[in-house]
Amino acid sequence: MQAVRRAERKEPMETESLTIEGRNAVIEAYRSGRTIDKLYILENCHDGPVMTVKREAKKQNTPVKYVTKERLDQLSQTGKHQGVIACAAAYAYAEVEEILSRAREAGEPPFIILLDNIEDPHNLGAIIRTANLAGAHGVIIPRNRAVGLTATVARTSAGALNYTPVARVTNLGRTIEDLKKEGLWFVCADMEGTVLYDLDLRGPIGLVIGSEGEGVGRMVREKCDFAASIPMKGKIDSLNASVAAGVLAYEIVRQRMG
Amino acid sequence: MQAVRRAERKEPMETESLTIEGRNAVIEAYRSGRTIDKLYILENCHDGPVMTVKREAKKQNTPVKYVTKERLDQLSQTGKHQGVIACAAAYAYAEVEEILSRAREAGEPPFIILLDNIEDPHNLGAIIRTANLAGAHGVIIPRNRAVGLTATVARTSAGALNYTPVARVTNLGRTIEDLKKEGLWFVCADMEGTVLYDLDLRGPIGLVIGSEGEGVGRMVREKCDFAASIPMKGKIDSLNASVAAGVLAYEIVRQRMG
Repeated sequence: MQAVRRAERKEPMETESLTIEGRNAVIEAYRSGRTIDKLYILENCHDGPVMTVKREAKKQNTPVKYVTKERLDQLSQTGKHQGVIACAAAYAYAEVEEILSRAREAGEPPFIILLDNIEDPHNLGAIIRTANLAGAHGVIIPRNRAVGLTATVARTSAGALNYTPVARVTNLGRTIEDLKKEGLWFVCADMEGTVLYDLDLRGPIGLVIGSEGEGVGRMVREKCDFAASIPMKGKIDSLNASVAAGVLAYEIVRQRMG
Repeated sequence: MQAVRRAERKEPMETESLTIEGRNAVIEAYRSGRTIDKLYILENCHDGPVMTVKREAKKQNTPVKYVTKERLDQLSQTGKHQGVIACAAAYAYAEVEEILSRAREAGEPPFIILLDNIEDPHNLGAIIRTANLAGAHGVIIPRNRAVGLTATVARTSAGALNYTPVARVTNLGRTIEDLKKEGLWFVCADMEGTVLYDLDLRGPIGLVIGSEGEGVGRMVREKCDFAASIPMKGKIDSLNASVAAGVLAYEIVRQRMG
């Protein structure tokens, strides 16, 4: 009944993530503590084991998509999905508290990078890599809509995922509120913001980077204390998200060194 | 006889580059001024039109690979290669002189980014994008071993290829020597170098970025006036090449603004 295989499909959300298929396999995965990034359940299916899966999903805050049998058949690697397919994280997520305690242990003011809906796994991997080298204590990503810790993310992070904790939260805005109580200031990347070199970026800080297409969402942006812009002299719109994150993260490094 | 198709193969060098197949098609491409990034010619083939192709290749400094008929058949999209397949650049290359004159026209000290064997088209595209936004006047890449201006590079440059000239040179070291006579200083990215924030990066400058695997080659590094390092606090080896280029390019922007 156990059916765990590495998916090799072309659709972004499934790319090289670990899929777990079948009711019992998914229930076992939940009970063993594995993090499920996303769950596909056959629509209008209410029998016992499927209800158990739904209860576990609710407990763990797993995003659930109700889909047709045809869609499940298409997603299935084994042909034995029994109405349930789970996409598991290739790496385990950390808690936000672990990130803060890493800063405390290092005797450093917290430096956290928060990502608002980065969807490209190569960008997420490159940003985790940058976070590691810039001395950030961790990365926080939202539970919904963003890419999770897939094998592609792990590979493009060049090993950084083994050292830099990544936490996943339900509501990025609420997490920012909570972290403000811990003394953090928040700066978001925003083309309309103050030129980054004119901001004081020392002290306990959260750096918020948005998706390439839309930037940082309005709700999250409004929670931030500052908006930082990178000077753009060219004729095109914006830097690659991971390059922008690198430029901002290293301005924080520079100011902390000074 | 004309046989031009977009290649969709998985091998990096052919990825989405424009291939031109057939003796006359390749000769016409040369005569129309199109840049050929690489040429595959059937080994031990010495008839008239093939000799003409070889002469054009020599004139244009095109890297030539002599391969078996089996290899050509495998590379061919049309099945009618007649012993000759050319990989054309998706975009036209500029001359180094055009980059310098752009700086003169803008009344700015030249700022050029030189890439020593960047092989990943996504990195090349992201660096051209960064060059555009950081106000660099152009990018210089070596003719051999590096990736050319393929469709993937154009796409990941997010339009920057339309505005930022990219020149291709036979010998990066010699180009550095030539540009020194124009008053440029050269700084290369090197983990053993001086921390970038401690260097004076104002004035006419060439920034040299190496490949992810090997960094800047010894011959090129020895031509540089300075080596700049990015502080690395983490446990992994290095930043993604396009992120490193972004951090260095924007330190130049910051110092030029100051």
